[in-house]
Amino acid sequence: MEIIKSLIVPNERKILLIVLDGLGGLPKNGKTELEAARTPNLDNLAKRSILGLTIPVNYGITPGSVPGHLALFGYDPIKYPVGRGVIEALGVGLSLHPDDLCIRGNFATFKNGVIVDRRAGRISTEENRRLCELLQSNIRRISNTKIIIRSSEGHRFAIVMRGEGLSTYVSESDPLRSDEEPREIKPLRDEAKKTAEMLKELKDRALELLKSEERANYILLRGYSKFPSLEPMSTFYKLDPACIATYPCYRGIGKLVGMEILQAKTWEEEIEVLKSSFNDFDFFYLHFKETDTKGEDGDFEGKIELIEKFDRLLEKILKLKFDVIAIGSDHSTPALLKGHSWHPSPFLLYSPYVRSDGAEKFSERSCKKGGLGIFPALGVMPLLLAHSLKLKKFGA
Amino acid sequence: MEIIKSLIVPNERKILLIVLDGLGGLPKNGKTELEAARTPNLDNLAKRSILGLTIPVNYGITPGSVPGHLALFGYDPIKYPVGRGVIEALGVGLSLHPDDLCIRGNFATFKNGVIVDRRAGRISTEENRRLCELLQSNIRRISNTKIIIRSSEGHRFAIVMRGEGLSTYVSESDPLRSDEEPREIKPLRDEAKKTAEMLKELKDRALELLKSEERANYILLRGYSKFPSLEPMSTFYKLDPACIATYPCYRGIGKLVGMEILQAKTWEEEIEVLKSSFNDFDFFYLHFKETDTKGEDGDFEGKIELIEKFDRLLEKILKLKFDVIAIGSDHSTPALLKGHSWHPSPFLLYSPYVRSDGAEKFSERSCKKGGLGIFPALGVMPLLLAHSLKLKKFGA
Repeated sequence: MEIIKSLIVPNERKILLIVLDGLGGLPKNGKTELEAARTPNLDNLAKRSILGLTIPVNYGITPGSVPGHLALFGYDPIKYPVGRGVIEALGVGLSLHPDDLCIRGNFATFKNGVIVDRRAGRISTEENRRLCELLQSNIRRISNTKIIIRSSEGHRFAIVMRGEGLSTYVSESDPLRSDEEPREIKPLRDEAKKTAEMLKELKDRALELLKSEERANYILLRGYSKFPSLEPMSTFYKLDPACIATYPCYRGIGKLVGMEILQAKTWEEEIEVLKSSFNDFDFFYLHFKETDTKGEDGDFEGKIELIEKFDRLLEKILKLKFDVIAIGSDHSTPALLKGHSWHPSPFLLYSPYVRSDGAEKFSERSCKKGGLGIFPALGVMPLLLAHSLKLKKFGA
Repeated sequence: MEIIKSLIVPNERKILLIVLDGLGGLPKNGKTELEAARTPNLDNLAKRSILGLTIPVNYGITPGSVPGHLALFGYDPIKYPVGRGVIEALGVGLSLHPDDLCIRGNFATFKNGVIVDRRAGRISTEENRRLCELLQSNIRRISNTKIIIRSSEGHRFAIVMRGEGLSTYVSESDPLRSDEEPREIKPLRDEAKKTAEMLKELKDRALELLKSEERANYILLRGYSKFPSLEPMSTFYKLDPACIATYPCYRGIGKLVGMEILQAKTWEEEIEVLKSSFNDFDFFYLHFKETDTKGEDGDFEGKIELIEKFDRLLEKILKLKFDVIAIGSDHSTPALLKGHSWHPSPFLLYSPYVRSDGAEKFSERSCKKGGLGIFPALGVMPLLLAHSLKLKKFGA
C-alpha cells in the first residue's frame, strides 16, 4: 500500500463504495440469498461491470466487521488490530482521542464470592442505560483522568478513560466463565501500575453504587485498547472521504480512517444524504447494515427482501453519475450459518474503464467467473483509485 | 498461520484429508490421467463440493514430497526446510530426537582412486540390508555419540548420530558424478570440527569393514540435517490427528507434525484402519502413494487404473460420515514428465457449508473453474478448520 500512496495523483473523479454488510451467502435449495433475489438494477449494472470475489482477510478466516472494513479501505487488518474496547466505544458512538484507553464493560451478578452470571441475567438495554447514567453521574474523574461511561446493548457498556500515561497492559477482570471469582486487576508491565490503580478505584466506586442492585451488582472489565493510529484516507489517498452509515459502529470505523461522518437514520435517508453532499466529497462509503442482521438471524427470506430493497434504491444512486462504483461486502453472513463467515464476498466494479464480464446476474456464481478473479479485499482501494485515474505509472 | 492458531475453537467435528500422491497430470490425446479415468464416485462427490487448484510452494516450483505435504498441513515449506538426511531417516522408520544429526548414505564402488559407480551397481535392497547390519554391529559409538545405521532401498541408507554438539555444517563427500574422487569431509564452520572428525572416523571404519566387497566398497555421505522443530498439530490446531500411510516416508512426515501413526500395508487396509479408528481422532491424513509411482514410471494407463481403484474405495470412505472431506495432492506427477512437477494440484472440498460448483467431473479442468480458485496449498488447513467450524471470528 506504500507504493499506492506514492502513485496518487488527485483529480475530480468521484468514487462510490457501497458495502452491503454480510452480503455473501450459502445456497438453500441451490441458490444463495443474492442468487434468489430479484435484482434487475444490480443485474443490469453487473452486465456493464467487472466482477470478482473478495477474500477479506485470508483463506478460512471469518472477519469481524472492523477487519472486514479495514481491508476494503486498504488498511491491512492483520497489521492494524483493533481492540474490543475501541470497538465498543465506537459502537456506542463516542469520539475517540488518540490516547484514550477504551474498555468493554459487562454488568454481572456477584454472589458468595463468585460471579454467578457474567451477563447479569441479560438485563434490558433500558436498565443498562439507567445503570450507566447512575455510574456516569457519580464517577466523572479518577485522579486527573476523565471517565466516560456509555451504555451499549444488553449487559454491555463502554468506558473511555481520557488522560495521560494510560496503558493497555492491565489484566482483565472477567473470569470468562460462571461460578468463578472475578480476576484481580493487575498491571502487566511497570508502566501500567497507575492505570491498574485507577481501574481498581473505578471498579470499587462502581460496586458501591451498584450494591443494592439485585442482578447488576458487579462490573467486569476487558478489552483494554487504544485507537490505532491509521494514516487518514485524506493524506494517504489524497481523497475527501465521507461515511454514510446508520449504525454507530460503522461510523466509528469511518472515523478510524479519517472519513467525514454524515448522519442518516434509514436507507432512504442515506441516499438523500448521498445526493445532497455529492458535490462536497470525492469518495463515499455508503453502508447498509441490515442484510448482515438478517443473515445473523438466519432469516434467508428477510435477507432476500433487503437485497431487493437495495436493488430498488440503486436506481436513484445510479442517477448521481459517479465515475466509479463498487458494490461489495466486508464479509459473508450466510443465513445458513447465522453469523459471519469466511466465504469470499461478491464484488462488482463499474467504470468506463473495465473489461466488463457481461454477466447476466450479480451473484456469487457470476462473481466467481468474473474478470477480477478471487482476490484479497486489500486490492479494492487500488482498483477504485486506478479506475478513477488517480494512480500514475509505477516506474519508467 | 499464527492468526489461525489464535482463532481455534475445538469441537467434535471430524476432518478427512485424502492425499492421492502426484495426482495432477498432463494431457495425452487431450486428457490428463484424472480426466481419462472413470470416476463415478469422485464425480458425484465433486458435484456437491467446491473445487480449486492448489499451488504447493509457488509458481513454477516442483516440490519434493516433504514440502508438498508440509504446505498441505499448514507449515510453510520455505520457512521449514527439511534436509535429505531427515527424510531418509524418517523414510526407514526411525524415531528422531531433536538434536539428532541425520545423514543420507549411498553405497558406492571405489576403484583406482575414484568413485566408478555412485550406486554400487544398484545393489539389491537385500544386499543393502546385509551391509548395513555388518556396519551397525561393528559401529555402535564414536566418542560419546551413538551411531544408528539403517538400510533403505537399493544403494541408499540412513545414518543417525545421537549425541551432543553435533553440527550440520560439514561438507558432503559425494562427488555427484562418476569417475571423480570422493570429496573430503571438512567442517564448514568452527563449531563443526568435532562432527567432521567423527564423520571421517565413521567413514574410515566403514571402509575397513567393506574392503572385501566387490561393488559396495565405499560410502558417500550427504544431506546432513536435523529434525526441524515444528509445533505439533495437536497444540497448533488443537486437533487429534492420525496418519494412515503405507510408506515410511509419509509416516515420517506425519510424525514431523505430531500425528499418531496408524499401521496399514495396502490401500484396502488403510480404509479398514480408517474405519476402526474413526472414533479415536478428529483429523485423518489418508495417503495413497502409488498414483505418484505410476507417474514417475511414465505409466499413464497405470495411473488411470489406480485413480479408478481409488474411486471404488471412495464409496466405503463416504459411508463414514466425515463432516469435512478434502481430496488433493502434495504435487502433480504427470506420466508425461516421469516425475514430480510444478503444476497446481486438483483439490476438492466437501462440507455442508460450501458454495458447491456443481461440476460434472473431478478433473484439472473443473478444478480450474472451481470456486476456490487457484490458491496456495497453505490455505488448505485454514479452509478445513473453517468448514468444520473450528475457527472463531477474527476481530470484532
